[in-house]
Amino acid sequence: MPGIFYLVPAASVLALLFAYIFYRRMRREDEGTPTMRQIAQYVREGAMAYLKQQYKIVIIVFIVLALFFAFLAYVLHLQNPWVPFAFLTGGFFSGLAGFIGMRTATLASGRTANAARRSLNDGLKVAFRSGAVMGLTVVGLGLLDIAIWFIVLNAFVDEATMAQKLVVITTTMLTFGMGASTQALFARVGGGIYTKAADVGADIVGKVETDLPEDDPRNPATIADNVGDNVGDVAGMGADLYESYCGSILSTMALGASAFYAVGPEMQIKAILAPMLIAAVGVVLSIVSIFTVRTKEGAGMAQLLKSLSVGTNLAAILSGVATFGILYLLGFDNWWQLSCSVVVGLAAGVIIGKATEYYTSHSYKPTQKLAESSESGPATVIISGVGLGMVSTAIPVIAIVCAIVLSYLFAIGFDMHNMISAANLSHGLYGVAIAAVGMLSTLGITLATDAYGPIADNAGGNAQMSGLDPVVRERTDVLDALGNTTAATGKGFAIGSAALTALALLASYIEEVKIAVGRTGDALINGVEAAKASILDVMAEYDVSLMSPATLAGVFVGSMMAFLFCGLTMNSVGRAANKMVLEVRRQFREIKGILSGEGTPDYKKCVEIATRAAQHEMILPAIVAILVPIATGLVLGVSGVLGLLIGGLGAGFVLAIFMANSGGAWDNAKKYVEEGHLGGKGSDCHHATVVGDTVGDPFKDTSGPSLNILIKLMNMVSIVFVSLTVL
Amino acid sequence: MPGIFYLVPAASVLALLFAYIFYRRMRREDEGTPTMRQIAQYVREGAMAYLKQQYKIVIIVFIVLALFFAFLAYVLHLQNPWVPFAFLTGGFFSGLAGFIGMRTATLASGRTANAARRSLNDGLKVAFRSGAVMGLTVVGLGLLDIAIWFIVLNAFVDEATMAQKLVVITTTMLTFGMGASTQALFARVGGGIYTKAADVGADIVGKVETDLPEDDPRNPATIADNVGDNVGDVAGMGADLYESYCGSILSTMALGASAFYAVGPEMQIKAILAPMLIAAVGVVLSIVSIFTVRTKEGAGMAQLLKSLSVGTNLAAILSGVATFGILYLLGFDNWWQLSCSVVVGLAAGVIIGKATEYYTSHSYKPTQKLAESSESGPATVIISGVGLGMVSTAIPVIAIVCAIVLSYLFAIGFDMHNMISAANLSHGLYGVAIAAVGMLSTLGITLATDAYGPIADNAGGNAQMSGLDPVVRERTDVLDALGNTTAATGKGFAIGSAALTALALLASYIEEVKIAVGRTGDALINGVEAAKASILDVMAEYDVSLMSPATLAGVFVGSMMAFLFCGLTMNSVGRAANKMVLEVRRQFREIKGILSGEGTPDYKKCVEIATRAAQHEMILPAIVAILVPIATGLVLGVSGVLGLLIGGLGAGFVLAIFMANSGGAWDNAKKYVEEGHLGGKGSDCHHATVVGDTVGDPFKDTSGPSLNILIKLMNMVSIVFVSLTVL
Repeated sequence: MPGIFYLVPAASVLALLFAYIFYRRMRREDEGTPTMRQIAQYVREGAMAYLKQQYKIVIIVFIVLALFFAFLAYVLHLQNPWVPFAFLTGGFFSGLAGFIGMRTATLASGRTANAARRSLNDGLKVAFRSGAVMGLTVVGLGLLDIAIWFIVLNAFVDEATMAQKLVVITTTMLTFGMGASTQALFARVGGGIYTKAADVGADIVGKVETDLPEDDPRNPATIADNVGDNVGDVAGMGADLYESYCGSILSTMALGASAFYAVGPEMQIKAILAPMLIAAVGVVLSIVSIFTVRTKEGAGMAQLLKSLSVGTNLAAILSGVATFGILYLLGFDNWWQLSCSVVVGLAAGVIIGKATEYYTSHSYKPTQKLAESSESGPATVIISGVGLGMVSTAIPVIAIVCAIVLSYLFAIGFDMHNMISAANLSHGLYGVAIAAVGMLSTLGITLATDAYGPIADNAGGNAQMSGLDPVVRERTDVLDALGNTTAATGKGFAIGSAALTALALLASYIEEVKIAVGRTGDALINGVEAAKASILDVMAEYDVSLMSPATLAGVFVGSMMAFLFCGLTMNSVGRAANKMVLEVRRQFREIKGILSGEGTPDYKKCVEIATRAAQHEMILPAIVAILVPIATGLVLGVSGVLGLLIGGLGAGFVLAIFMANSGGAWDNAKKYVEEGHLGGKGSDCHHATVVGDTVGDPFKDTSGPSLNILIKLMNMVSIVFVSLTVL
Repeated sequence: MPGIFYLVPAASVLALLFAYIFYRRMRREDEGTPTMRQIAQYVREGAMAYLKQQYKIVIIVFIVLALFFAFLAYVLHLQNPWVPFAFLTGGFFSGLAGFIGMRTATLASGRTANAARRSLNDGLKVAFRSGAVMGLTVVGLGLLDIAIWFIVLNAFVDEATMAQKLVVITTTMLTFGMGASTQALFARVGGGIYTKAADVGADIVGKVETDLPEDDPRNPATIADNVGDNVGDVAGMGADLYESYCGSILSTMALGASAFYAVGPEMQIKAILAPMLIAAVGVVLSIVSIFTVRTKEGAGMAQLLKSLSVGTNLAAILSGVATFGILYLLGFDNWWQLSCSVVVGLAAGVIIGKATEYYTSHSYKPTQKLAESSESGPATVIISGVGLGMVSTAIPVIAIVCAIVLSYLFAIGFDMHNMISAANLSHGLYGVAIAAVGMLSTLGITLATDAYGPIADNAGGNAQMSGLDPVVRERTDVLDALGNTTAATGKGFAIGSAALTALALLASYIEEVKIAVGRTGDALINGVEAAKASILDVMAEYDVSLMSPATLAGVFVGSMMAFLFCGLTMNSVGRAANKMVLEVRRQFREIKGILSGEGTPDYKKCVEIATRAAQHEMILPAIVAILVPIATGLVLGVSGVLGLLIGGLGAGFVLAIFMANSGGAWDNAKKYVEEGHLGGKGSDCHHATVVGDTVGDPFKDTSGPSLNILIKLMNMVSIVFVSLTVL
């Protein structure tokens, strides 16, 4: 292995080291008054209790799937023996990333509230550095796992040729990605249902019916709500982005190994190392940039946003420049063109981020107009918010389309006359894949800006419940409003990278068909020896055509899957929130003196309801996501699966952006009114925007953000179970 | 021309004749009291005034497009000389179908109210027979126009061979389809915005804020609301289904001519005649079945629905049986297999209809549960309704997927080993296309059950405003509730047939590429003479591959188009409704004594606002729908366009079902509460469901139902402007 590879584990250790330093610093901060400690303790306990429950179920799913893999690998010999272990590791580390993030967040929010008592800047610093723990943990763990697996498989996998060995190593590692995606789906869906059941329930009875302020300690669902922010927006998001990060790198490695198979192992190794090294350098640059984020007392949204933007933009620019160096050093002939592919990915990420900001921040027209539509009541708020979200899909789609076409064309050196020749097809798609790596290379810092949102949100909750000086809450509110926008931006990155990663996985799927054919004994594809067959050969062999009825049918099923999945999770939130509402109403009715502050609400009961609902409701959507690709493969064959994946990708991508942006805009429209516009808090407009915010909750925090995982998971399931389709 | 062809014009004349008979009968009914006449007069005037305004704008668009076509045809010689005329005719007759339907509906609703004073059965009879005028007018005009154009083109088109002549005739007739689609899009979008601006505005101020009942004469927007039912749900729907009906027949004819090109003109003629004859026989069977619809006094929803079902099911079964006879008589070798394709289409239509009924009728669990979610307020109603709609997409998608795969396989005689050979590809897709004709063959009666809904709705309005005995309103409410379900079913048929028709148009697009290549002088495709080239040759020539970056980019753009289009129209409704709300509030404030019944509201002002908003807002979505396919062709080429059409089809189909079903379920959840459940009228649950209903209005009557037109229009625009892409 070339020495340069060891930069990868080195960078990952560095990331984990800095994560630990930030963590220690955060722990040294004062936790504040005894009430503050008490409340933080409640939230921490609730969050841990939920996570424990969730992992119990997830472990069962993982054991079942791992046993099935073991059966395929050891009994039927349709998989290589490493697959079950890779799968389990992916799940474990994805969960660990979420767990560490959540642990940090629940320790940090009380401390953030306390720091915000001193100044806005201190509050931002504690929250953001704690977010950075999460960001660096995710990238650090991700890279470390990839590096270790690569070393292990490199030492043990034995194939006839080096070229074949590299293909087997990298495709085996995709199973690790599937493990991460499966765990992420449970974390996102379970956490999303939990947080939104609690949030929606708390809002409806608390804010709409009883006119209590947000996070009022008299609201029985308030602790559950704060727990929810941690299990959904922190643990769920952590697992999600761990999955995205690893997915983009692993899919590029796998595609690199197969795309350059014909060129030889030397070139393959370069193509495998490139994504790892770009990511490793991105980690280092993220750490540097994290230190540039600071702000002044009295800073408004605009300045705060600017101070975060300086950090993320710096990281992005440095990372773009560094890519040219890396690819040059690796000795790619087309080093500068391929670097341009990476830059294109980075640029698309930035554009999607900016577009998200434009559509969801109340500093801009769309959300302000949405807020104004509240003058005619909640119904027009919903209508306008749906309209806003749907229209907001245009710019991200155009950005991603340009990214796909340009990164492809750069990678094939604009060889327009042979655009989809066998070689250009794999090299071009490798360019698309590496663009996704570019988009996520600075995840260390973008995730920090993202994860800090729920910490600030919880800090506000803590301040409110502990009865701190209102100025503290005002400060945390400023931090939190910004968090809505950065969270939406983070989701933009997750879904943008998912689109590009999914294309790489599509290509990997076709490559995996070859390997599966080789394994089943029938080593020929279209008369060509399987190992040497190109993507085009495989497509011809399996009757894959744009006009094939199986493909077209697959496209319909794929599009439907995106909607079905969202529908199931929306219904879960609706049902769970309903239970929560009924419980809160019961407590108001039966426990005397809650509203006057004399009685104590039964917080625990609400935490229990959310926990049980999340646990119960996350199973069906996850099973659907895993079974439908397998069933499609069995019924419609390879070309049906490709249709499924493409349909799911197209519809899922657009639906995800619609839901995230509608939700973000509704939330901020409410905040806009709360800042005193259109009658301010307690006005009819406020009530109308609260309805919008409540509807937006599952849009932006449950269904929408799960879609990027769904898209990739369906791809990975298809890849991992391809032997069943091809048999 | 074989004599059997003349069955087509004969059936169409028969349909128009019966339409006229039903129309005369309806006119003979008594209009009721002077107040009733007065109100009917208001609505009629408002509707006509709007239609006049709409046509003014549409005419400008048509003239511009026709001039452009003339330029392409006469100056650049890239189109044949009949194209501009065919385009204009399609637009004209689509508009005429809507106009006649609306004229009938505005004359019928007062008379229905009056008949309902006598009995429920009389009310049903008048409303349903008036709906039948619309149903028979649409199919009659559609078939007549197709027959006449076929005769004219057959007489005048001159090509080297008969086979080529038939291809040119049928593809020219697609321009007629594009004219119909363009006009339909304006009618659906303009009408949809009008009706929902008025409806939403009237509901928000009237029902939510002032607690007035529906259609109360004190509500200034009430006349506009009733006008809206006519311009949107009648004129818009008429144009829409005219477009669907003609589209399915024309696309099958075009595909038949090209699919059997290699076999020779004799077979081509059979393939061209088949869809026309199936439709013609369907017309006759629809007329027969219309006479079976009747009901008894005291009938509930279930019985009414049953009596309508008897009619539509009878027509469907007879039509299925007749198809075997027709295809046998035409002398198809595979007559019974191809008939099975048609039956598959019919069955898919019925399943989609039943699924729609299940999800949107409050006789079933889903809508009842949706109503129950109102216990925790409007936000959970919205969340649950969105969830319901999204989940409800699964069955229709599975039905349509089965229809596609089965109708394809039947048409190629289950020749699984050559599933996508050049011949099987075109023959199989011809099977899919003719399945769409099967689905719409009984449109005469299904449209009658659909169009009767808004008539009953308006009759209720008339009864309320004229202060008739409450029992009349109760009777019309029963009719209207049923109308919601039949309307949802009608939309299911429209979108289901659109999916199949769109596949036929996809194939026609590829065929049209050949013709365009021939016309531009370069008569070779992939070394094969253009006229003889197969779909596969064309795809290979133009680098069309599932994995091509242009195709994948196109899929994203297509998916986005469905959302963008819905977003634009949702925003339009939001804006227009907001204006309406402000106006109604102003009138309540400034005109003294409105609420006590002493002052008269200024109905005209509200009608004006809706008219102006609709006129203004329909332009942008329509332009986007026409320009994006052209732009995609210019930038991404043939394979980008195919991606666009497939992505738009997948996402658009699912989105359309989601929106229609969510909207229908919200409407009926409200009706369920109004029937006395969950506290009944005026309760908190009622208010919450009214918000749901209001949000659902543009879902089900503006954005959702426009999507089936969008899908086909994008296909037809691509076909008609293909020469610009290929140049």
